[in-house]
Parts: sequence; C-alpha cells; structure tokens
Amino acid sequence: MLKHQAIAAKLKNYIEEHDLPHGAKLPNLTTLMELYGTSKNTMMQALKNLENSHVVYQVQGSGIFVRRRQREAYTPLFQNTAGFFGNFHEHIKHQVLAFEKILAPPDVAQNLKVTSKDSVYRILRLQILDGAPFCLEESFYVVALVGELPKSVASTSIFSYLRQQGLKIGFSDKYFDSVLLDEKQAKALELPPNSPALRLEDIYYLNDGQIFDYSRTYCQAKFFAQSN
Amino acid sequence: MLKHQAIAAKLKNYIEEHDLPHGAKLPNLTTLMELYGTSKNTMMQALKNLENSHVVYQVQGSGIFVRRRQREAYTPLFQNTAGFFGNFHEHIKHQVLAFEKILAPPDVAQNLKVTSKDSVYRILRLQILDGAPFCLEESFYVVALVGELPKSVASTSIFSYLRQQGLKIGFSDKYFDSVLLDEKQAKALELPPNSPALRLEDIYYLNDGQIFDYSRTYCQAKFFAQSN
Repeated sequence: MLKHQAIAAKLKNYIEEHDLPHGAKLPNLTTLMELYGTSKNTMMQALKNLENSHVVYQVQGSGIFVRRRQREAYTPLFQNTAGFFGNFHEHIKHQVLAFEKILAPPDVAQNLKVTSKDSVYRILRLQILDGAPFCLEESFYVVALVGELPKSVASTSIFSYLRQQGLKIGFSDKYFDSVLLDEKQAKALELPPNSPALRLEDIYYLNDGQIFDYSRTYCQAKFFAQSN
Repeated sequence: MLKHQAIAAKLKNYIEEHDLPHGAKLPNLTTLMELYGTSKNTMMQALKNLENSHVVYQVQGSGIFVRRRQREAYTPLFQNTAGFFGNFHEHIKHQVLAFEKILAPPDVAQNLKVTSKDSVYRILRLQILDGAPFCLEESFYVVALVGELPKSVASTSIFSYLRQQGLKIGFSDKYFDSVLLDEKQAKALELPPNSPALRLEDIYYLNDGQIFDYSRTYCQAKFFAQSN
C-alpha cells in the first residue's frame, strides 16, 4: 500500500468510526498534514483518492467535507465485491438448487448457438448475501466445450474451476431488463409471486469466439452507484 | 482524429456495411496494413481500439474476427449516447408532461433534505428515443437553489441551462431497483399497468454539497453491455 493510500484508509476509518454525517467539515489541509505527519503532496493525493471513492468532497476556498449517501440498504452496482456487473465471489455464497445434464431447451440452444440435440449443464443457484437471498442464477454450460463438471464445483466459482481446467474464457455480452418473477423464482427469493426483478442475461464466449455459457440472473436487490 | 482512429472507423464501417456475422474472419494484419496503407504499429492500435469497443476479437495465432452481439433491440447501458447511466442529450427527445411549482411532497422533501414548506419545481417528461417512449422522468428542483426556471427549459437539457446560469453542479448518488408501474406511468410509456420497470433515482448535489435535484426515472427499456 502506498503512503497516500494508507492515509486515505485511516481518514476513511476515522469518518466511519465517528459516524460523521454528510457535510461535516474536516480539518483543513495543513491540519490534516500535521495530524497524519505527511507532506502536502501525499495528503492531497489521499484526499483526491477519497474524493474519487465518494468519501469526501472538496469545495475550493471553503474546505473538505464528508460525503455520505442517504440510503444504506443498497448494494453497490459496480464495485467488484458484490455488484450486479462485478464479480460476486468475495461476499456471495451459493446454494445449489439444481445441477443436471440435459438437452438444451430451445431458448437456451438459441442463446448458446447450439442445437436442441446438444447437451448442457443446467445449474440453478441461489446467491446469498449477508445471509439473505440476493439473486437467483440459472446457468447453462455447453458440455462439448466445458467437459464433465463435478457437482462439487456448483457451490464454488465455476469460472475459476474452468480456468484451472485450461479453458480460455474470453468476453461477454450482457442483456439487462426488468421482468416479473414467476412463482418458483419468487419462492426461491422469498418474495411474493409477480414481484418485479432485474434480469441480467450473460452470454460468455471463449477467447476463440465460441459461446460456452448462457446465464440469467434475477435480482430484486436495490443497488446504488455514485458519481463525481 | 488520430490516424489509428480513422482506420478503426473505416474498418468498423466496412464490417457494418457488409453486415459481417459474428466470427467472420478478417484479413490478417499484413493484408490490413496494405489495404489501409499504414504501418504495423498504427494498424495494431486500430485493432486494439476495435477490440476495446467490442467490434472485433483477436485470437493469438489464429486471426482477427468480427464480434457481434446477437440481440439488436437493446439500448447501450453505459455509453454516453443513450445509456441509463450516461447522458441522454444526444439522441433522446423530451416531451414535457408537467411543469409546475409546488410545495415539496413529503417523500420528495426527504430526498431533497428540505421541508414540506419549501417550493420545488416538478417536471415530468417522457423521454423519446427513435420515436418511441423510452423512459418517464420525474424531477424535482429546489427553487431556493435553482432560481426561477422558464418553462421553455423543460424540453431541453435543464442541467445545461443551470450551468449557464452559473450553478456549480457537483456529484450525484444513484439508486437503482425494479418496480411495478402504476396506471399513469404505464400509460405514458404505452405499457399495460403493472408492467415491471427499472427505476433510477438520482440525487444531485451542487459542488458545495447541497442537494438541488431529486429525480426518478422509470424505464421499461432493454439494455445491453459488453465486456472484454
């Protein structure tokens, strides 16, 4: 960790521990330099860092202030810890609801660009965040491309497993809309039937351009994003 | 435009004009250099550029291929032309459905951090993309901060107008979830009542940390995003 990052982390901790509200004025630059025993340059870098991560805002000629969003019960949309578009590995746990090898259903075959005579793994998992249902994820993997999958991989990161097996994962297309949950989906997510949900459809390509995975994820979660 | 950008644009045009499918193999690097009369370095930059914008993919030792997503009727989620998180200015037209000065309703007052005795402008607009309803946007501006707004600004970019008036727009918090449209909202978007929709709530701050705008936007649109 660079020095300005360490100082940024300390100042962020201070703000969180003292539960400072939005708009709370922080000490000025000179005072902060003294408090953290650092140069002007390093302190300014630390502050820029905190500004970019939406922890403070700076008003020229006026000072440095705490930035805080009003709503807490939202999940970050973009950050790589648990975002809809990020990777879920760190904080999300998976409860496997189905693991089966089947012939590709017509709509799945179309998305995977295979025929309905091709075999796919269907893996249905409930994503759990902080002990509560977060998203329901149904994935289809082309057997001819991924090989035999042991059932045990379903509760872990399937992509990590595939990479270990030497699969070269390339790019993805993501489609995103809003749908009503059917009864089964709603039940898995502990919601009333016909609840609205975000749907994310992912089509994953190997780096040679072949599609090996189609997945659809349903989330009723609330997300936030912040801009500078 | 830099030379590699010009060449990237030409190659992209060629792919679009000839409606090349996903996986179509393009000429190799040497041939492309000859075709576009350019150096290896410039051609490689142009290809990297097209790879980053999801127009081609390169397979080491194999060649350069056309990348194309399968679904066309989706709007980019992130690009700055019409994305949910981008700016809508370029292609979106606004049809003003309401423009009024009112006392802040309780939920609005809470989001704006004002009292219900404070006046706000309420501006309801239908966003139209390619001639069809795209999103329904309801915005509330704090009169004490934005001053008097002429009705004519409602059909244009309100933020551009405010900047011209000297307002210093700072940062924003965005909240994002899935909801059912009520009858009025659905009607405006030409959808059946209780259709599911994405809701984006934006809280905009001046650069001194004061909230001047709260808006909620309802979209039934389908979005796409692509990753490398």
